Amino acid sequence: MTAPLQIVALLFPNVTQLDLTGPAQVFARLPEAEVHFAWRDREPVPTDSGFSIVPTTTLTEAPQADLLFVPGGSGAFDLLEDDVALDFIADQAAGARFVTSVCTGSFALGAAGLLAGKRATSHWASLHMLEAFGAVPVSERVVRDDPVITGAGVSSGIDFALTVVAELYGERMARDVQLFIEYDPAPPFDAGSPLRPEADQQEVKDRLASVTEHRSPMVAAAAERLADRR
Amino acid sequence: MTAPLQIVALLFPNVTQLDLTGPAQVFARLPEAEVHFAWRDREPVPTDSGFSIVPTTTLTEAPQADLLFVPGGSGAFDLLEDDVALDFIADQAAGARFVTSVCTGSFALGAAGLLAGKRATSHWASLHMLEAFGAVPVSERVVRDDPVITGAGVSSGIDFALTVVAELYGERMARDVQLFIEYDPAPPFDAGSPLRPEADQQEVKDRLASVTEHRSPMVAAAAERLADRR
Repeated sequence: MTAPLQIVALLFPNVTQLDLTGPAQVFARLPEAEVHFAWRDREPVPTDSGFSIVPTTTLTEAPQADLLFVPGGSGAFDLLEDDVALDFIADQAAGARFVTSVCTGSFALGAAGLLAGKRATSHWASLHMLEAFGAVPVSERVVRDDPVITGAGVSSGIDFALTVVAELYGERMARDVQLFIEYDPAPPFDAGSPLRPEADQQEVKDRLASVTEHRSPMVAAAAERLADRR
Repeated sequence: MTAPLQIVALLFPNVTQLDLTGPAQVFARLPEAEVHFAWRDREPVPTDSGFSIVPTTTLTEAPQADLLFVPGGSGAFDLLEDDVALDFIADQAAGARFVTSVCTGSFALGAAGLLAGKRATSHWASLHMLEAFGAVPVSERVVRDDPVITGAGVSSGIDFALTVVAELYGERMARDVQLFIEYDPAPPFDAGSPLRPEADQQEVKDRLASVTEHRSPMVAAAAERLADRR
């Protein structure tokens, strides 16, 4: 591994910001690593949470990533029709040691042709749709199928990033970062995934229905374009 | 409670950004709530993680908060000498239903005179120093002593925010947000607090020594200024 380690994250409008900021907090603790947030220009990018984050570089100026990272959110589905972004992902992935995502960022990896035959995960409500890109959907918190590492929904980015740190820097470094961010979670409810006893099953049904209505057509179209390009 | 609920967070240089972005992701899901990031002006504010976040309002233009929120980080200790920020916190707190913090944001609450006699928490490495402001340090993930609610270090902001949502909107809303952010944590190590079996005890000692050397004098000075003002 060359030093410094280059971590390049895609920062796009309507990103679910915790997908990005959770891992960024973990990666910020690493010695000899540079973390870049790349988008078309350096204007502030609006997130899903009512505030904007400033890119640190652009798609054309970003260094070759050792670790490429794509967060998710409703904006990740806009990427499926964005050839500039998909080309960036595919080009960067070709030279990266790890190609990674959290939440529905895995759909951008899929649309860029990076998940064919790969075990991968995503947000629980969208996971099943990954099949459209030839991926094998796996309902786990962090799924590794080298060079691809994917995390499940939103908050799983913290588990994802600590797993990546353990791989790149060893377990002691990962444990020290975990201690620094006091990641000793105590969720007030047992409701964090559809199978948990306190999960609201009506909400599960409603969200699955909404995904099928709004996102399935986008995913199908992106899968078709991917097949055409091959 | 008037609608919309006004949540005002302080956004300052060198904030530990996950202290802020974790709760912001939770609060962003709330109906009839407005989340503001306030600082001196609207220029991007550099965080501890190598990227900048843009304030949504200023200290003078922020609405009266129903929920005032102060995140932590090394920048939180700079607030202890910043009368403009401390006055903002004290003035806002006087009209707020809840006065809250995550991580070392509790030190800014303390320096603003808001923790006298209150049970409160902070990042594990700094917690003991809260006594300087007359607080009762409590080593728990989320500590409530109305109107004050404090969260422990960094990632505890997610637990903190879900607890707040349950109080303000009911448990069903909190469970639905937890499901949306797929907060079903699976840390790869059991190392997230000093008492955990995989926590690096040398790192614990080193960090406590560093805090004592660098931050104790700042806290002592802030406590003295607070006593003088009374």
